[in-house]
Amino acid sequence: MTSLDGIFDSLKLAQARLALATRKEKDTALRSAMAAIDADRAAILAANALDVKAAREAGMKESLVDRLALDDGRIDGMMEGIRTVAAQEDPIGRVLSGWTLPNGLVVEKTTVPLGVAAIIYESRPNVTVDAFCLAYKAGCAILLRGSSAALSSNRALVASVKRGLAAGGGESDAIALADSGSRDDVDLILGARGKVDVVIPRGGHELIRRVVENARVPVIETGEGNCHVFVDASADLKRAVDIVENAKTQKPGACNAVETVLVHRDAVAAFMPLLAERFGRRVELRLDERAKAALASSGSASVSRITDATDADWETEFLDFILAVKTVDSVDEAIEHVNRYGTKHSEAILTNDLDAARAFGLRVDAACVYTNASIRFTDGSEFGFGAELGISTQKFHARGPMGLEALTTIKYRVSGTGQIRE
Amino acid sequence: MTSLDGIFDSLKLAQARLALATRKEKDTALRSAMAAIDADRAAILAANALDVKAAREAGMKESLVDRLALDDGRIDGMMEGIRTVAAQEDPIGRVLSGWTLPNGLVVEKTTVPLGVAAIIYESRPNVTVDAFCLAYKAGCAILLRGSSAALSSNRALVASVKRGLAAGGGESDAIALADSGSRDDVDLILGARGKVDVVIPRGGHELIRRVVENARVPVIETGEGNCHVFVDASADLKRAVDIVENAKTQKPGACNAVETVLVHRDAVAAFMPLLAERFGRRVELRLDERAKAALASSGSASVSRITDATDADWETEFLDFILAVKTVDSVDEAIEHVNRYGTKHSEAILTNDLDAARAFGLRVDAACVYTNASIRFTDGSEFGFGAELGISTQKFHARGPMGLEALTTIKYRVSGTGQIRE
Repeated sequence: MTSLDGIFDSLKLAQARLALATRKEKDTALRSAMAAIDADRAAILAANALDVKAAREAGMKESLVDRLALDDGRIDGMMEGIRTVAAQEDPIGRVLSGWTLPNGLVVEKTTVPLGVAAIIYESRPNVTVDAFCLAYKAGCAILLRGSSAALSSNRALVASVKRGLAAGGGESDAIALADSGSRDDVDLILGARGKVDVVIPRGGHELIRRVVENARVPVIETGEGNCHVFVDASADLKRAVDIVENAKTQKPGACNAVETVLVHRDAVAAFMPLLAERFGRRVELRLDERAKAALASSGSASVSRITDATDADWETEFLDFILAVKTVDSVDEAIEHVNRYGTKHSEAILTNDLDAARAFGLRVDAACVYTNASIRFTDGSEFGFGAELGISTQKFHARGPMGLEALTTIKYRVSGTGQIRE
Repeated sequence: MTSLDGIFDSLKLAQARLALATRKEKDTALRSAMAAIDADRAAILAANALDVKAAREAGMKESLVDRLALDDGRIDGMMEGIRTVAAQEDPIGRVLSGWTLPNGLVVEKTTVPLGVAAIIYESRPNVTVDAFCLAYKAGCAILLRGSSAALSSNRALVASVKRGLAAGGGESDAIALADSGSRDDVDLILGARGKVDVVIPRGGHELIRRVVENARVPVIETGEGNCHVFVDASADLKRAVDIVENAKTQKPGACNAVETVLVHRDAVAAFMPLLAERFGRRVELRLDERAKAALASSGSASVSRITDATDADWETEFLDFILAVKTVDSVDEAIEHVNRYGTKHSEAILTNDLDAARAFGLRVDAACVYTNASIRFTDGSEFGFGAELGISTQKFHARGPMGLEALTTIKYRVSGTGQIRE
């Protein structure tokens, strides 16, 4: 088995130094890393071209190759992520609250870096830079374990960032790539108690399961999204069609795409023909009986791709141009369906009924609950975080899009004048 | 293997209802539970007497019997815990922050209950009531797995709380005791993914290790404390003796008691005789060479119990009337020692030097860092939380004394007028 002990030690030492850096020092180093990426464009793109060529030769699906491939626009995007994070307030050294005890002791709850973070991710090289810049700004060291398909790209990016950090007076050892290509690396990271303070898996179902099942270090689960849009009886149906179309087709492979639309029985007759007309043959509709009947009686069915929904559809994250539709009798039934089948990611109600909006918002158990908007906005950049580490679908430590705050913890500072406990 | 599935289901349903309770409803139910405990004093004390008798017959150490035993004063203490928690602000439904995106979407970060919490603990029955009242106020259901030694006491307490909740219009199924007495219960709790949102072990080293190593659900580690007090060159030595005495002897078995005192070389000659005189024969001192020499040359050594410190002493949580003393050359050396051997619980610097206080406070990695006070104040009640779930010695989700906030998570509420993602 390979060893990562040298890397773990080096990350820990760099993190201890970085924890003491001022905001100005961190931002200077980040901007220097950004400049280095810019200066190294040719080398980064050449390294990425090797990965892309090897991936195509190995028969990788073109949709995955697209996630792997870099171009100038994507490099600009990475730089913009660093720029935005550098412009944000320092998440470290904040006094979140404070109070004085009856004996005069002053207690302050302050923010400090979480420590060493590790991210285990699939092919997108932009994650390399996003994760690095958030970690650095939060005073954390980061260990990156990307996929072997992106190894050349990630090596080039990390080399560039390290060079930039060093040139900007920063801590170049606060970033490391686990690049042996061996699957042992993942096991070593998952077992690194006392060396790694959090592991974040980003990728498909299998990767996330493996991490959750095997980790001995804290994990933040991300990204599985069986998400719903509920079209209530009082919804503006024109708006509802726009939102459902956006949530389904703007990026069907995203975790915050809609998979099942729930329609109130009082809206189904009017809504289904509008939806079928909008989708035409682009989206396969898996309809329950009432939705199917509504469409049939409207005469619009002939242009659509329609199949009968089964119970299995309610629990499926299609990640494709497929949409399940279920008719419900009430807001309560919609909430129950969402809480039963949803993955606690992003859920929406489209309504003009304040009580319905309130009930849905309170009772639906999810990271993000929307009223009258597309669920596609669940994203660190959209939320204004600059970059994101991922979208937490768990409730522990971090929930929803994760920016800087997810990489912080607290320290109580207690100041006295000789107080002892009675 | 026994099953807890019925209990898990019932807790989950009760929690979903409790999550919607208003503060008034929760506080009314809590006060009713408090009244029920008061009314059931005789039954609770009788049940506890059975546990105490059985424990003595089984040869339990008297110090542990003391932790198990209840009397009217301790029942008053439990009631006071409920009263204090009921008087606190509702931790649920707070809007922590909020902002408007460029497209007009309004994002609000709100607090919601964490869900179902489980606590696995050793003999103190007061934990039963403390954990319950915090969980209830935070809208969480709680599963209690106490020790078999406290089974009768816990059954009586839980029966009383349930009766009180029902009488007060509350959710009596939001509390349950895993009372089969089988060790299987612990394994079932640790494996209950999707049913239990957090497990908190409270007890000795072995229990905590077992939980951390085996859990498939999120865990908050608590309570191991190898804590230090650093007497800096500029410390007020009279005050330092008071603080070290308090931190060592006020409750030597507590996790926030001091185990090693670090003394600056410029203070050791003056400090050691004062310390030895204060402790007399009550505390065994394990001294490094310089501390021993300082004491010898002062002529005070004869009254003290002194041994030579070994490296093993620096990493030992004595939990006894034993104190290790090490002389250091600088604040830096003190910080390095603390970060190497400490368990990130509670650490103090005694100084009159602002730069030293600042450096220690920033660089020591611990839940609570003190200046010029006893570390014995690391405690939910002392911090003003009313009761505590335990003291988290990890950095993830919760750190330090855990009150209501540790049982909350967040939900983003996003409100729009038809926004779709470009």
